[in-house]
Amino acid sequence: MRIGILGGGQLARMLAMESYHLALQFRCLDPASESSAADLMEHLWAPLDELAALQKFVEGLDRITFETENIPAAALDFLDSTGLPYFPSRRALETAQDRLLEKRFLQSMGWETAPFAPVSGPADIEAFGQKWGYPLLLKTRRNGYDGKGQRIIRDKSAIAEAWPNFSETPSIVEAWVPFNAEGSLIAVRSASGELRFYHPVRNVHRGGILHESAPWPLAPALRQQAERAMRATLEGLDYVGVLTLEFFLCEGRLIANEMAPRVHNSGHWSIEGAVTSQFEQHIRAVAGLPLGSTELLGTFRMLNLVGKLPPLESVLKLPQVHYHSYRKAPAPGRKLGHITVSAPDEPSLGERWKKLLEAVNATSDL
Amino acid sequence: MRIGILGGGQLARMLAMESYHLALQFRCLDPASESSAADLMEHLWAPLDELAALQKFVEGLDRITFETENIPAAALDFLDSTGLPYFPSRRALETAQDRLLEKRFLQSMGWETAPFAPVSGPADIEAFGQKWGYPLLLKTRRNGYDGKGQRIIRDKSAIAEAWPNFSETPSIVEAWVPFNAEGSLIAVRSASGELRFYHPVRNVHRGGILHESAPWPLAPALRQQAERAMRATLEGLDYVGVLTLEFFLCEGRLIANEMAPRVHNSGHWSIEGAVTSQFEQHIRAVAGLPLGSTELLGTFRMLNLVGKLPPLESVLKLPQVHYHSYRKAPAPGRKLGHITVSAPDEPSLGERWKKLLEAVNATSDL
Repeated sequence: MRIGILGGGQLARMLAMESYHLALQFRCLDPASESSAADLMEHLWAPLDELAALQKFVEGLDRITFETENIPAAALDFLDSTGLPYFPSRRALETAQDRLLEKRFLQSMGWETAPFAPVSGPADIEAFGQKWGYPLLLKTRRNGYDGKGQRIIRDKSAIAEAWPNFSETPSIVEAWVPFNAEGSLIAVRSASGELRFYHPVRNVHRGGILHESAPWPLAPALRQQAERAMRATLEGLDYVGVLTLEFFLCEGRLIANEMAPRVHNSGHWSIEGAVTSQFEQHIRAVAGLPLGSTELLGTFRMLNLVGKLPPLESVLKLPQVHYHSYRKAPAPGRKLGHITVSAPDEPSLGERWKKLLEAVNATSDL
Repeated sequence: MRIGILGGGQLARMLAMESYHLALQFRCLDPASESSAADLMEHLWAPLDELAALQKFVEGLDRITFETENIPAAALDFLDSTGLPYFPSRRALETAQDRLLEKRFLQSMGWETAPFAPVSGPADIEAFGQKWGYPLLLKTRRNGYDGKGQRIIRDKSAIAEAWPNFSETPSIVEAWVPFNAEGSLIAVRSASGELRFYHPVRNVHRGGILHESAPWPLAPALRQQAERAMRATLEGLDYVGVLTLEFFLCEGRLIANEMAPRVHNSGHWSIEGAVTSQFEQHIRAVAGLPLGSTELLGTFRMLNLVGKLPPLESVLKLPQVHYHSYRKAPAPGRKLGHITVSAPDEPSLGERWKKLLEAVNATSDL
């Protein structure tokens, strides 16, 4: 079976790397000439909505999937015209592409969200601020990730200055959630309706970019609540593949933030940490294969490598440290790799984590 | 760093698949047009001793390694002329290529071997049989693997019939070892002399081809003895990379059978079963990187898939079963893939193994 991936970054790279053993073949289409996935599969280089490239891309493919939710409508129109099966569905992608549709949908599936409203001018923001207080968040409805397309409004006087950046594009305003912690829940559903959850993950961001993730001993009642809403979400979308839901923990309540209809940075530890990685799992679902176990294999913690990479040698000499470089050119704010540390128990994991941070900090300014 | 691999079968495939995360690139040269490794790296198609192909192969490479010990002397001459670093060394390859050199060398490193002798005619075999008894084994000195290039001589009367198959090629005769079990020890040594052992493995062969392998609770004294001889072997060759030693257990004694200067079929379980797989470990050594931990992660057992592959679906629905297809065309006696089963303890491993065999036998005549 030959699977096409729209997008050729590190997620496409790891989707292939972690499932080649299932005898599958891969091809990706990516607008960048230097694609992280290009070492590992046939790589077509073109914008995702260039029809001639899409035509070439689909030739001989059996299934298609995505490493990003930001698939242009023209590409989806083209895929629909070919009749080729693709997963997740157009509805899932379009819901995740639009923060307003997404939040409304998540609410309807039983998730609590922060108060939000569409805005068409400064007056809407002011009215929202009056009702829900400051700070608040102004966000474009589309094309947001890693903190892009959003701005904090600290008080009423900041609205006038912020608005011009948003006036040209449909936007929403959202109440600030004074969260105690951030997390994510990653789940997978197969075409036959089989459903599996990964262990919930605690996330720490820096500058809007994920910094670290680790399996999280969330209170059982909260975990059950999240899994219930996640099941409704997956079934409500007749979803096939891996779906990620990012949430805040705020005074004992789970507040859904956003969903990513794909494998997710906060699940990279699953390569070493779960019986079946999120990458293999997604590909199993897309290929119509039975799902694998999501069982945890120990204690794990992942560090993102952003902007710069520490030298391989300094990291590989540490015990039970798994270095993943995406072979991307360094650039500020760019995700270049990640490191997963494992240990038999939490105290030794903490020790190893400390040593890892020392090694990483000694050689770079991450 | 770009690493070249001479040979493009499943070992090359897994060497790359298990170490792409270290930001390395790979290229292979293989005489077969349908190479198992071709999905995962640049693949040049030519005999290993074709100089024009070798010239193209080495272009832009930083290091070279091998997936087979049967590297033609012409290829090694060419590599020597380029000055490019390759691992393991010519001496290691040439020792492993020749059963006579190999057995003499292993003895000198402290391994016990079965009695053996070079033969140049039927009289030599008869004299050996008289001294050591029957059955005995007649083997070509070169090009033996998976039971090829050898023949059992059950009594004196069988010599005349067997000899014509060996008369044209340098051969040896070897005493039959009435072994209780077969095993292997896989070890790795880095360029800086760092040395690690994998857990000893018990192997079961069928028709001369490895059928199953699993970590083996060898008696501590035997394990120490094997590791001592293995250390001498690695240091004696100034070896860099993974080296495998196959042995018999015979009435409480370890009898070395042969060495493979490469990753080995009996170590495939290390992909899931050890912190660092044999494949990543070999590439770390070749690339001059620090070695990783060889610690066991639980209980594991590997089944080779020879001749036919069971359907993916029937295997993937089983818990903690890892299916590895090499994407090779089926053929009798051909290694097409392997399956590793894991479990928290031996009793549940046994249960899972039973279910795996049922699934595999229901769908193929492996």
